[in-house]
Amino acid sequence: MKVSKLVGQRFKEKPADCVIDSHALMIRGGYMKYVGNGIYSEFPTLKRITAKIEAIIRKEMNMIDGQEVLFPVVMPAELWEESGRYESVGNELVRLRDRNDAKLVLGMTHEEAAVQLVREYGQSYNKYPFMIYQFQRKFRDEARPRAGMIRVREFTMKDAYSFHTSQEDLEKYYDVCYQAYHRIFQKAGIPEVISVASDSGMMGGSVSHEYMLLTPVGEDSIVICNECDYRANMEAAENIVKNESKGELEELQCIETPNCKTIDDVCCFLHSDVKKSCKAVVYQKNADDSFVVAFVRGDYEVNETKLRNLVGEDIHPAEITEDAPLVAGYIGPYNISDKVTFYCDTTLKGLDAIVAGANKEGYHYTGLNLERDLGNVEYVDIAKVKEGSVCPCCGKPAITIKRGIEVGNIFQLGTKYTKAMNMQYSDENGELKYPVMGCYGIGVGRMAASICEAHHDEYGPIWPISIAPWEVEICCLRVDDEETKTTADKLYKDLQNAGVEVIYDDRDIRPGAMFSEADLIAAPIRVVVSPRNLKESAVEIVTRDKRVKEMIPVNEAFDFVTNLKEKLFAEIESKVEPYK
Amino acid sequence: MKVSKLVGQRFKEKPADCVIDSHALMIRGGYMKYVGNGIYSEFPTLKRITAKIEAIIRKEMNMIDGQEVLFPVVMPAELWEESGRYESVGNELVRLRDRNDAKLVLGMTHEEAAVQLVREYGQSYNKYPFMIYQFQRKFRDEARPRAGMIRVREFTMKDAYSFHTSQEDLEKYYDVCYQAYHRIFQKAGIPEVISVASDSGMMGGSVSHEYMLLTPVGEDSIVICNECDYRANMEAAENIVKNESKGELEELQCIETPNCKTIDDVCCFLHSDVKKSCKAVVYQKNADDSFVVAFVRGDYEVNETKLRNLVGEDIHPAEITEDAPLVAGYIGPYNISDKVTFYCDTTLKGLDAIVAGANKEGYHYTGLNLERDLGNVEYVDIAKVKEGSVCPCCGKPAITIKRGIEVGNIFQLGTKYTKAMNMQYSDENGELKYPVMGCYGIGVGRMAASICEAHHDEYGPIWPISIAPWEVEICCLRVDDEETKTTADKLYKDLQNAGVEVIYDDRDIRPGAMFSEADLIAAPIRVVVSPRNLKESAVEIVTRDKRVKEMIPVNEAFDFVTNLKEKLFAEIESKVEPYK
Repeated sequence: MKVSKLVGQRFKEKPADCVIDSHALMIRGGYMKYVGNGIYSEFPTLKRITAKIEAIIRKEMNMIDGQEVLFPVVMPAELWEESGRYESVGNELVRLRDRNDAKLVLGMTHEEAAVQLVREYGQSYNKYPFMIYQFQRKFRDEARPRAGMIRVREFTMKDAYSFHTSQEDLEKYYDVCYQAYHRIFQKAGIPEVISVASDSGMMGGSVSHEYMLLTPVGEDSIVICNECDYRANMEAAENIVKNESKGELEELQCIETPNCKTIDDVCCFLHSDVKKSCKAVVYQKNADDSFVVAFVRGDYEVNETKLRNLVGEDIHPAEITEDAPLVAGYIGPYNISDKVTFYCDTTLKGLDAIVAGANKEGYHYTGLNLERDLGNVEYVDIAKVKEGSVCPCCGKPAITIKRGIEVGNIFQLGTKYTKAMNMQYSDENGELKYPVMGCYGIGVGRMAASICEAHHDEYGPIWPISIAPWEVEICCLRVDDEETKTTADKLYKDLQNAGVEVIYDDRDIRPGAMFSEADLIAAPIRVVVSPRNLKESAVEIVTRDKRVKEMIPVNEAFDFVTNLKEKLFAEIESKVEPYK
Repeated sequence: MKVSKLVGQRFKEKPADCVIDSHALMIRGGYMKYVGNGIYSEFPTLKRITAKIEAIIRKEMNMIDGQEVLFPVVMPAELWEESGRYESVGNELVRLRDRNDAKLVLGMTHEEAAVQLVREYGQSYNKYPFMIYQFQRKFRDEARPRAGMIRVREFTMKDAYSFHTSQEDLEKYYDVCYQAYHRIFQKAGIPEVISVASDSGMMGGSVSHEYMLLTPVGEDSIVICNECDYRANMEAAENIVKNESKGELEELQCIETPNCKTIDDVCCFLHSDVKKSCKAVVYQKNADDSFVVAFVRGDYEVNETKLRNLVGEDIHPAEITEDAPLVAGYIGPYNISDKVTFYCDTTLKGLDAIVAGANKEGYHYTGLNLERDLGNVEYVDIAKVKEGSVCPCCGKPAITIKRGIEVGNIFQLGTKYTKAMNMQYSDENGELKYPVMGCYGIGVGRMAASICEAHHDEYGPIWPISIAPWEVEICCLRVDDEETKTTADKLYKDLQNAGVEVIYDDRDIRPGAMFSEADLIAAPIRVVVSPRNLKESAVEIVTRDKRVKEMIPVNEAFDFVTNLKEKLFAEIESKVEPYK
């Protein structure tokens, strides 16, 4: 491919609306184009990358006995009514009608379609286990698409579904798939991806993991223990705090605290310790707008996901109107309206005397002791873990918090879908049972963007060679100089004939502009052919990551490039862990 | 792959709701599963076929300098409003709203997306010509999905768009693409596909061709000249009829013709020649329900597509109510209400005296001469061509009519989309001009189903080896016999290691059942390993198309199979025409 023929243009200037680097670089590099909110087209350069990512994933899925299938994007609503998700999933699920007013949905995930496909096939135990997967477009009507390809509404996803006759068999396969996922990221040149325990969200099921590429711009917070292997998404991370009661109870007093609507105001006004205060965060249930109050220790934040799982239905931050049974700024667990559901976080457990809102405009309680004053308190885990917290696994105060982009996820679904959709098999004794399912997803475009986010410099992406759009770029700095052009042309032909993926810039443009664009296209190996280099009968060979920068005799250039290519691939391969 | 592990089951019985063979066989063979009206999932067996078809198409598209891109399935309505198709396309275009009530459409074709992607890229003449293509899901809300994968609502399509600076350049590329399409069908084992001139329909543009696989169950009628190369879709075929006027005019008379509501009734009642009668076929415009009458000679049928193109807007068969300005059964061109638009077909030209409705209940005219009685008549071509008609190309009465399935189409679009969407480039002199476009489509699933329809017997599909799900099937007739199993196992391993795609049936089932299923999976080469054959130290090797059926010594089986595979591929390759 010649750069002069490559569809998609490259820009010098960073587009105004890009807040993260990968987004800006992929727009500047002619990788993709905005079509609509959270919707992009892929130019050839990105399509080449996503095709390579798909090939890596496909190979690994086949390796673990996956069979490729294809489900439709548009599905009849009945399928989703069977599983119950037509009602339970929110606005992310696009519901539409066809010309006959029949209800349809746009596939945002395909558990229902998977069960529908194999419901008859899987009627006997001897068919199990099996795994099917597909690459298909998904549409999720995200409220806030952002960060380019990282969070879009339409995307290509590899989604896989496994079926088993026992939880043990699922767990065995889940472990194999867990390894396959690591291998996929290793092969794609991002071995640094870590797996973390995660919240199963709308998928249901119990155990699940996410694969996270750590980067400061990631939208997920990851809880990592520096002392052991514990890793969890903040949404799912257990928070451990032990307040040691000294038995120093105080008298419960209602104190006037004028204009003290925040924890800081109150603690400052009363000269009290924020770690002995009670913070109220108020939500409403989506279904009936009734109020849910989360009480956490003043120095903690509420973990909405854990709260939502506890409540068992969707909630949103509350709007406290005048007729609400709550006094904004002065909400506390004692004497709270019985129209309100409230939860006390474990961070409040063991505190002898705390400061909390008095549910009365301008007043707080001091000396509140939850057990004494409220009676039997059931503490729940609804706070966010903080830096330096105690690890729930090893017990050491070694928790650190990083940010990451989720590049894949795997779930143990159990029988949620097979039961709801009445998929059964007869076991060895002829008894009817529900198969146990797992599901396994990777967003292809997001993976490309994440790799760019984790591997770039100010000039462009630094693609690992296994997924780079081209392996080699030849920059011919003077097409009007015959020797330069002939040398570059010949190398282009020779490398192409040897099966090397080469992009060739033979445009008559300034070297600076050519190099800038080459940085954006980001072939891992660059060969610079110029009259100056040729004076020394050499070409310059550099890698995009700057580890190699050498003058190589023209007649050795071909061998050098092909060897370098092999070396770069071998480096990646060396980080791929074998299956256990 | 072992048959025992292959997801998807095979049935003995033909499903009740399948009207064409390919549909029935592909359901029976575990290729696909019905999900909803015109919506299917693909089992692994079909996915393997469609993947091979895609690879064949991709290779050919790259060969003619196509660059693969990816457009979204879901697009903002604005894009389609720009081109005008948001309004002009009927119910096939699914229009929907997102969570913010923004208007979206489901892509049924991607001209708009293609122009949007390259609008900035193509601003200078020196970028031209270029072609981009994609494989993507499409959704068309067809009124009557039918015939399995032949006419569905959701399908995978390869769609390509080329951009040019002149009509001549488009025509040059169109010719290359025309050849590429033939090569694709030749490589897929259906060299018998013919190209025919077609109607451009909602795509706009002037010249277009369809690629037709002839089969009696095809839904298109194809007009073919036996004497020259003329081939056209009935929708687009010119009808040539010459009535020779003898100058024998008759007196115009209004005759009572009680209960003569059809042409046959009238001709019988009046003892007149149907070829001297005038048939009225009534339509209404979709927009305002106003009436459009097509008059054709009594022995011809109206070609709705040609009529629609003439009217310039959508029409539907009329419902003639009591208050209509038409008398059902007695409609004629003389004295017809001026509230009605009518057209006279060329089949009526030159008739001296015809019988036609008198626009009065129970009466017909005889002796009607259109020129004399109506004045200046403009004859138009709105009748369907008939068997034995005169060829518009060579002038011989050698027209024959066959049925076919459209497996691909190519269009010269002109500047319809670039103008509507304001895509411009500056030419050599800095003048702004609109690029000229072509577009080129192939439905992948339909192609698979069409191949099955054209190549099958009562037992199953007969896949060409280039797209068959597997190249070889090994049938082990007695897994409980050690020698049989060992021989089959070894051949399976050896062939796999040699890169042959093998499916292996080592189930403990009756030979009859195994062969029936093998006929449905339809690997082109079958190796039967059985104790009876092994007694003679041989295995039986047969091809699915029954051309080969030989006993081969066990130690020669591997070579025989690999040679046969190569021979079958070579046969296909021998029919692939080189580019001119």
